Amino acid sequence: MKKIFYSLLFCPGLLFAQEVDQAAIAKIRKEGMENSKVKEIAHQLTDVSGPRLTNSPGFQRAAEWSVSELKKWGLQNSRIEDWGEFGKGWQVEKSYLAMTKPYYMPFIAIPKAWTSGTKGPITGEVVVVNIQNEEDLKKYADGKLTGKIVLVKGNADTDPSFKPDAVRYTTEDLDKMTNSQPFGQSNFTPEQAERMRTMRSFRSRVDSTMKAQNISLELAGRSGKHGTFFTSNGASYKGDAPLAGPAFEMAPEHAGLVARLIESGIPVTLEAESKTSFFDKKLTTGNVIAEIPGADPKLKDEVVMLGGHLDSWHSATGATDNAAGCTVMLEAVRILQASGLKPKRTIRIALWSGEEQGLHGSRAYVKNTFGDPQSIKLLPAHEKLSAYYNIDNGTGRIRGIYLQGNEGPRAIFEKWLAPFSDIIDHPTVTSRNTGGTDHQSFDALGLPGFQFIQDGIEYGSRTHHTNMDTYERLVMDDLKQMAVVVAAFVYNTAQLDQKIPRKDLPKAKTAAGVGR
Amino acid sequence: MKKIFYSLLFCPGLLFAQEVDQAAIAKIRKEGMENSKVKEIAHQLTDVSGPRLTNSPGFQRAAEWSVSELKKWGLQNSRIEDWGEFGKGWQVEKSYLAMTKPYYMPFIAIPKAWTSGTKGPITGEVVVVNIQNEEDLKKYADGKLTGKIVLVKGNADTDPSFKPDAVRYTTEDLDKMTNSQPFGQSNFTPEQAERMRTMRSFRSRVDSTMKAQNISLELAGRSGKHGTFFTSNGASYKGDAPLAGPAFEMAPEHAGLVARLIESGIPVTLEAESKTSFFDKKLTTGNVIAEIPGADPKLKDEVVMLGGHLDSWHSATGATDNAAGCTVMLEAVRILQASGLKPKRTIRIALWSGEEQGLHGSRAYVKNTFGDPQSIKLLPAHEKLSAYYNIDNGTGRIRGIYLQGNEGPRAIFEKWLAPFSDIIDHPTVTSRNTGGTDHQSFDALGLPGFQFIQDGIEYGSRTHHTNMDTYERLVMDDLKQMAVVVAAFVYNTAQLDQKIPRKDLPKAKTAAGVGR
Repeated sequence: MKKIFYSLLFCPGLLFAQEVDQAAIAKIRKEGMENSKVKEIAHQLTDVSGPRLTNSPGFQRAAEWSVSELKKWGLQNSRIEDWGEFGKGWQVEKSYLAMTKPYYMPFIAIPKAWTSGTKGPITGEVVVVNIQNEEDLKKYADGKLTGKIVLVKGNADTDPSFKPDAVRYTTEDLDKMTNSQPFGQSNFTPEQAERMRTMRSFRSRVDSTMKAQNISLELAGRSGKHGTFFTSNGASYKGDAPLAGPAFEMAPEHAGLVARLIESGIPVTLEAESKTSFFDKKLTTGNVIAEIPGADPKLKDEVVMLGGHLDSWHSATGATDNAAGCTVMLEAVRILQASGLKPKRTIRIALWSGEEQGLHGSRAYVKNTFGDPQSIKLLPAHEKLSAYYNIDNGTGRIRGIYLQGNEGPRAIFEKWLAPFSDIIDHPTVTSRNTGGTDHQSFDALGLPGFQFIQDGIEYGSRTHHTNMDTYERLVMDDLKQMAVVVAAFVYNTAQLDQKIPRKDLPKAKTAAGVGR
Repeated sequence: MKKIFYSLLFCPGLLFAQEVDQAAIAKIRKEGMENSKVKEIAHQLTDVSGPRLTNSPGFQRAAEWSVSELKKWGLQNSRIEDWGEFGKGWQVEKSYLAMTKPYYMPFIAIPKAWTSGTKGPITGEVVVVNIQNEEDLKKYADGKLTGKIVLVKGNADTDPSFKPDAVRYTTEDLDKMTNSQPFGQSNFTPEQAERMRTMRSFRSRVDSTMKAQNISLELAGRSGKHGTFFTSNGASYKGDAPLAGPAFEMAPEHAGLVARLIESGIPVTLEAESKTSFFDKKLTTGNVIAEIPGADPKLKDEVVMLGGHLDSWHSATGATDNAAGCTVMLEAVRILQASGLKPKRTIRIALWSGEEQGLHGSRAYVKNTFGDPQSIKLLPAHEKLSAYYNIDNGTGRIRGIYLQGNEGPRAIFEKWLAPFSDIIDHPTVTSRNTGGTDHQSFDALGLPGFQFIQDGIEYGSRTHHTNMDTYERLVMDDLKQMAVVVAAFVYNTAQLDQKIPRKDLPKAKTAAGVGR
């Protein structure tokens, strides 16, 4: 059955025969361009909800608002769907860091996620540790840092920015992507990806050394520039993880000031206060799910999905990572409803939780709904999903789509992109993979899961996991464009004579194979 | 006498006859490039001294260190030279601002200069005032803001940065400058200058309205991006100025968050604490002055001056505005001393105070030393100054020099720049004025005062009067280059057969003319 299906799909004439419903696309465009709600939706998800770590009050606000709004728009089965145990919720309730000697200077900083607070204001002299390699690490293995305020010296890039923070793909960039192999997993350049891997591995080694020392306060300002800094967690979110001591991420310039003073023999005293709260399975950890039921009796039990992760990091309001994606997906289903279209297949939106800690929400959803990606034991719904579309590369407009090595739908997608050549400059379909987000959960079970190619704008330089990922970073015209294109892709998928072509099923991972 | 002198100077042969002492220039280059101390000097002025508002402890640290260092290098008469009454010194001793409702978010902020503190932590709901024009201003003239925490809504540019923060002049830019008229007074593009003028005038109107209301705390986040914000004073530094209430400048993104929440009908509560100290004529307000005495008995009572302002704003360590200029000038005299050269004329360095509040240090020095720029009543030293060279346009390397409308020295400066064509790309002499800093104090009395053309780097976008004007922003190679070029210019001026040609004396300003 499956084999026959595939071979039919690779016979292009069959699919090419089906023309896009241009009247429907025109309605989608009109609604999306003339009655756009992206500003209002983005404002709710960012400003009103706040930072959205899974199982935090901010995530709960965003999830509850989304469920309620989806209901208002007339979607069915709008709900928060629990998928199991996430771990601890966490939020910041006080954050203050300043130098008090040799002179006063307030610092730009925030507690790292899942670290504990300082239990009131603390003050003390700073010790700088400069750990560049395993040798350096050994020096600090003897407990000499116990009870100290420790600054871990960083290597942030402090060169002037002769390249723009914001970029869009050129025609040449996109042509290169079209012709590239499917196995680039990253959204970053190979150099960026390598730098990030090295940095993460280094951080992890240093962090465990610090933790072993029971220091009083850990400080680091490792990357970012001009008041922007990048941050994530300083301890594990897992329910059984031990409590970690207080730790701040800070602007590299302020970390640099402290380090240079101490290197010059000038003692530095800091004062700090952090208060953080933990939520143990009290709040919201599930995915937001809602549906536009299919109108065709024969096709309505088949499903087209669209989604993005609703959770964010904590130092800002996660505007481009990933309120942008959720705004686009919410707006896409709003457009479909408002346009009065009656899609044949069921359309299901999912706003995922726990993405930042390992695609937890989407992985659990796929496992519970479609089958086990380890054993490749499939559930009946596996056969019924046509495709999943994801947005999670920031605020930049759609320039095309990644096929994830699945050449089957190339001609279809090219046809669907073509009518948008006025709002998609040089529409591009690439065989490439792109990684790091929720479409991978579907791809891992042989389901057609796609991420769109988006202009980078300031994602790599200023917004991805930074304290400056705020509402200001959203380019509303780009969000509008994305919502229209996604709504069209979703609608076209719902109307297509066939489901979207699939890759071969992945092989089951044997017990021995897992973890290799 | 003066007329004869001028006509001689305009006969090019006379001056062209004097060749540059290439052996001396080679010594200067060697010392400046191989034994550079710019890193150490800049570290002392920025990191170690801290923010340097005139009459603050930071200014005092920087001035005392400079005097002591100049002595160590063997300069004579190294001292802080008082010039009269500046006004109040001021520094920040605590700065904390955060949103506590609807959720917690720490804000990037600092008290505006010369504002008073909050007298302990305060908390309260925020009122947003949106004052765009005189009509809006009138709405708030009735005392309804008394006792409130007020956010003045801004209009910061929040577009993505598709242009680089850092720039250098292209050959085309410099050619345009060469051919431009002398009367561009600004260091900024006409658009930037116009924007700044409009913004300042608007701020001043809004500020006086706020002050009249006796509000509890004033907040504004008017310009900057990505964690960088621009700030200056929120009250007058003058000794008899009344105390102003507490006011913070903050990141526009955080101001935007508060404003958008309130516009959506969601009450916002902030907590804030600021502590500021005033110093009334207790600390240091003078200029740092030191000399390398001239070695030629006939010329040693003639003087070549070089300088830059030592004071800064308070939200960072004033690295590019203007520790950079002071570093270059200190390094230039260090190079001259270390090279063992014996300049004929006396070389005098001046690091000015009070520049940011109106070129006070240099104006007072010129008036006390050379004559009154109002009455054009000259003192004997007026005849003895050959030239004054200034650096105050950030960290960017020298690309040439502004003649300030004084065409007399064009051929001389072109000759002096020529041997540096390997480190000055497309050396440029422009007739143009450039404004806003201390060479103007000399120019106002008909004395040859020059500012060098410098690459902008991040001066306009990220550093000039910002919270991110830190040591990281300094480009050490550019500081080195500047110190070598300045040392050469100063040495050449000291050795020149004649003094540097002058413009005609300005006309005395009649009482009626003043203030027009």
